[in-house]
Amino acid sequence: MALVEEQPEKHCWVCFATEKDDYSAEWVSPCRCKGCTKWIHQSCLQRWLDEKQKGNSGGAVSCPQCGTEYHIVFPKMGPLVYFLQQIDRALSKASPFAAVGVVIGTVYWSAVTYGAVTVMQVVGHKKGLYVMERADPLFLLMGLPTIPVLLVLGKMVRWEDYLVRLWQRYSYKRKLPPGTSRYLPRVPADGLTSGDHLSVSRTLCGALVFPSIASLVGRLLFGRVSSNLQQTVLGGIAFVVMKGVMKVYFKQQQYIIQANRQILNYPERNGDGQNEAGDEDTEDSGNE
Amino acid sequence: MALVEEQPEKHCWVCFATEKDDYSAEWVSPCRCKGCTKWIHQSCLQRWLDEKQKGNSGGAVSCPQCGTEYHIVFPKMGPLVYFLQQIDRALSKASPFAAVGVVIGTVYWSAVTYGAVTVMQVVGHKKGLYVMERADPLFLLMGLPTIPVLLVLGKMVRWEDYLVRLWQRYSYKRKLPPGTSRYLPRVPADGLTSGDHLSVSRTLCGALVFPSIASLVGRLLFGRVSSNLQQTVLGGIAFVVMKGVMKVYFKQQQYIIQANRQILNYPERNGDGQNEAGDEDTEDSGNE
Repeated sequence: MALVEEQPEKHCWVCFATEKDDYSAEWVSPCRCKGCTKWIHQSCLQRWLDEKQKGNSGGAVSCPQCGTEYHIVFPKMGPLVYFLQQIDRALSKASPFAAVGVVIGTVYWSAVTYGAVTVMQVVGHKKGLYVMERADPLFLLMGLPTIPVLLVLGKMVRWEDYLVRLWQRYSYKRKLPPGTSRYLPRVPADGLTSGDHLSVSRTLCGALVFPSIASLVGRLLFGRVSSNLQQTVLGGIAFVVMKGVMKVYFKQQQYIIQANRQILNYPERNGDGQNEAGDEDTEDSGNE
Repeated sequence: MALVEEQPEKHCWVCFATEKDDYSAEWVSPCRCKGCTKWIHQSCLQRWLDEKQKGNSGGAVSCPQCGTEYHIVFPKMGPLVYFLQQIDRALSKASPFAAVGVVIGTVYWSAVTYGAVTVMQVVGHKKGLYVMERADPLFLLMGLPTIPVLLVLGKMVRWEDYLVRLWQRYSYKRKLPPGTSRYLPRVPADGLTSGDHLSVSRTLCGALVFPSIASLVGRLLFGRVSSNLQQTVLGGIAFVVMKGVMKVYFKQQQYIIQANRQILNYPERNGDGQNEAGDEDTEDSGNE
């Protein structure tokens, strides 16, 4: 019993009060700790737990010293409360999925609308309405959203890059006289993709605005064609070809500019350039 | 001239070759560095620059030792290339804004559609169509999207929390006999918000599904009312009241359960519990 008498008095490791300070206080020894951190007031531990849980009242909390998880018991809840809790949990778990569904539905519905507007733009307002009213609704709900999807996928085919690569391969072979490889302009690191970040926003916007541009170009260039559909298709083809030619030209020029870049010497100041006068000649000749 | 003769030979700090190794190589001294890092082959520096820029061919690169930014010159580009570059840059800058516009347009159009569907659900399909066809289109384009917005805002008014707080204040005052404050159940840290995270997805989904629920409850409970509008409004009110009562009850019960939680003593093992036999009594009495 000598050991017991060594620590006869409980004291709380939160408020430092002892048994003598308040005989009516409720004590608890919630973990494996011995000695001076064995005892704590029930009320102090409750307050400390509230702070640890920070609103997440179901979270497990462990003793910071010995790591024992505190054993918290709650009064038994009635069947109605249990039922309501289950519903609350089910709703909380389901709501993120439902929100994702809302987002998907929003995108889907906008794609359907965009598809319908595009059909009317391409074949003409009245004819488009007539075609869509006579079509199978299921076919429309499946077919119309594929229009923007196909436009975006089509925009992602970068045929101009392929043409540029072909051109560069051809011009490189032609320009290579034997034995002069060193004096050729350098080949840029990634000449094709330099400054040509395949940006998501640009692909999306370019794809979505394409039918309007095709319709506009068709009306400007092929005004004599009576059919709205033919006009737009011709306009689209003309626009794609014109844009492709300009893009290939631009990329090729960019490639040439990059290949012929030159890094200059650091300009020597007169003051500290004196003791390097002997180098100056070599430097100049090296930078022709 | 003695200083010059101390370093008569250039050597490249990338490939370590000297002038003697290749008399035709082009040398450059692009930065403030002196001594053994002063000279570098033009071609070596180009390769090193390509690696540093990693496709961003316009990026500035500095000497890793002295920090001088290299002065890179490009051949002059023609007016057409300049024009195409300006267009390319303008499109790159504008496309993120256009993409944001696409997203806003998508959300807006879905809100318009949701509003129209809700109007038809509340006042009946035929009457809804009739009302909307006769209304000013501008009014519809402004008014319909406000329907989901108002639903979400209405869902964010948490009147049940206010009722629970009122109830708790009332019951707390009634239960407090003078001088017994210590034996009252504790007040949970944030009893009101515990387990009640104001989740975005739940608010959104609850708000959007509300008209359907109101319509359903109206049809079930107020089938005798002939007007579709009155039926749905009565159904909505009934649903809100029922849900509110259940929510207030559930929150109050949760509050009580949290207030009466108890942390248990760690169960003493028989083996090492011997020298604490003196404590056992106190512990038990403390845990009544």
